[in-house]
Amino acid sequence: MNAKIWLVGAGPGDPELLTLKAVRALREAQVVMIDDLVNPAVLEHCPGARVIAVGKRGGCRSTPQAFIQRLMLRHARQGRCVVRLKGGDPCIFGRGGEEALWLQQRGIEVELVNGITAGLAGATQCGIPLTLRGVSRGVTLVTAHTQDDSELNWAGLTQGGTTLVVYMGVARLGDIRRGLLEAGMAADMPVAMIENASLPSQRECRSTLLEMAMDATAFALRSPAVLVIGEVARQGAVVELVTAAVGVA
Amino acid sequence: MNAKIWLVGAGPGDPELLTLKAVRALREAQVVMIDDLVNPAVLEHCPGARVIAVGKRGGCRSTPQAFIQRLMLRHARQGRCVVRLKGGDPCIFGRGGEEALWLQQRGIEVELVNGITAGLAGATQCGIPLTLRGVSRGVTLVTAHTQDDSELNWAGLTQGGTTLVVYMGVARLGDIRRGLLEAGMAADMPVAMIENASLPSQRECRSTLLEMAMDATAFALRSPAVLVIGEVARQGAVVELVTAAVGVA
Repeated sequence: MNAKIWLVGAGPGDPELLTLKAVRALREAQVVMIDDLVNPAVLEHCPGARVIAVGKRGGCRSTPQAFIQRLMLRHARQGRCVVRLKGGDPCIFGRGGEEALWLQQRGIEVELVNGITAGLAGATQCGIPLTLRGVSRGVTLVTAHTQDDSELNWAGLTQGGTTLVVYMGVARLGDIRRGLLEAGMAADMPVAMIENASLPSQRECRSTLLEMAMDATAFALRSPAVLVIGEVARQGAVVELVTAAVGVA
Repeated sequence: MNAKIWLVGAGPGDPELLTLKAVRALREAQVVMIDDLVNPAVLEHCPGARVIAVGKRGGCRSTPQAFIQRLMLRHARQGRCVVRLKGGDPCIFGRGGEEALWLQQRGIEVELVNGITAGLAGATQCGIPLTLRGVSRGVTLVTAHTQDDSELNWAGLTQGGTTLVVYMGVARLGDIRRGLLEAGMAADMPVAMIENASLPSQRECRSTLLEMAMDATAFALRSPAVLVIGEVARQGAVVELVTAAVGVA
């Protein structure tokens, strides 16, 4: 008899940003498979479960992913309720969609639980609204990391007029800068680089498109970090923008 | 003595998608100001608080917004802990950034609490991963509604290669379709229109860019709804895409 598999977003790091549904899944879990980027503090909600660390950082490829999937499948087929805990949200750069379908194709019941994504939490903790009337009509989340090292369409990304949030970009700051400058983005476009979003160890480095790689080096910026690129990240100036936009004296 | 004001994302509708931090804020609240789109079921976490409905749907403008802000300020200055509950996330089309700065400029301590945004929850509940390796490298969230009726840069939005999620678009389906077709998006681009994301009353209407306005009428699609536009919304075909992308037999 197969049990259910939950694919759960554990949020950006702050254990209080877990949803009530994620807590319920953890309480029901007999096996919890936890990714590297998940704060182990959330395991307080599943004291009786068997915990398996299945993290993989950049560099590893399909073998560990296949192994993780087979491990989930095996536990579910042995009748155990499995929770797979992912950092942020399982469907935003989290492979949740892939894993859910792979399991469903093998007859397993899957439930996905959304989580707060790191880019959103980091920006909020730094006082940066990702959208702002009169300044930014939307937000675009992209990952700088790909399996095939293909390049993002930076020109397209700059023309939409949205705030740009880049995940997994620390190792590729030079490429991102070059891509965006060539696409015509202003060299003085504000950039906020946010390490360990939402954790007590969160650090933010404010810079510009032109200087972000140099500033990140001086700051010793480390993964995991998100980049928020856009007018909304202009320090101090946001106050003016907001005052003008709100129009309330 | 001023008390604190919490600007809290109540998530997309499912009360279980509230975060633990939002629950803590509600428990501490003496006054709760609740927007239209928030599920009143979340008020179970603040049985002793005074609840004020401050919703405003499209059409109303700056007067109610100024009124809401002054009301928050007055309660905080009277020493009451205030929670302002917003649908989704306070910083994604929620004016959380504006309100936070306006209050901070008046000496009030503000804490923002992120929430799950409706576009993410709706897509997930429909089995649509917003990002998918080999198919979509990111996601763009935009609102179709503006105060000044300005047009989005549809050409820019289509060229970034990201999944497009449009909020507040039900009344503007014809304009969105025209803008995206003129920008060169394929007429058969899949579109999922999701009403009441994450609630038991959630309904989804699958269509294409060309036919979405007609299909929405036949479906009697009503606000609140989000549109997910992109290859990831192709029904059935996602299974093929995922199987190919995962590469695990």
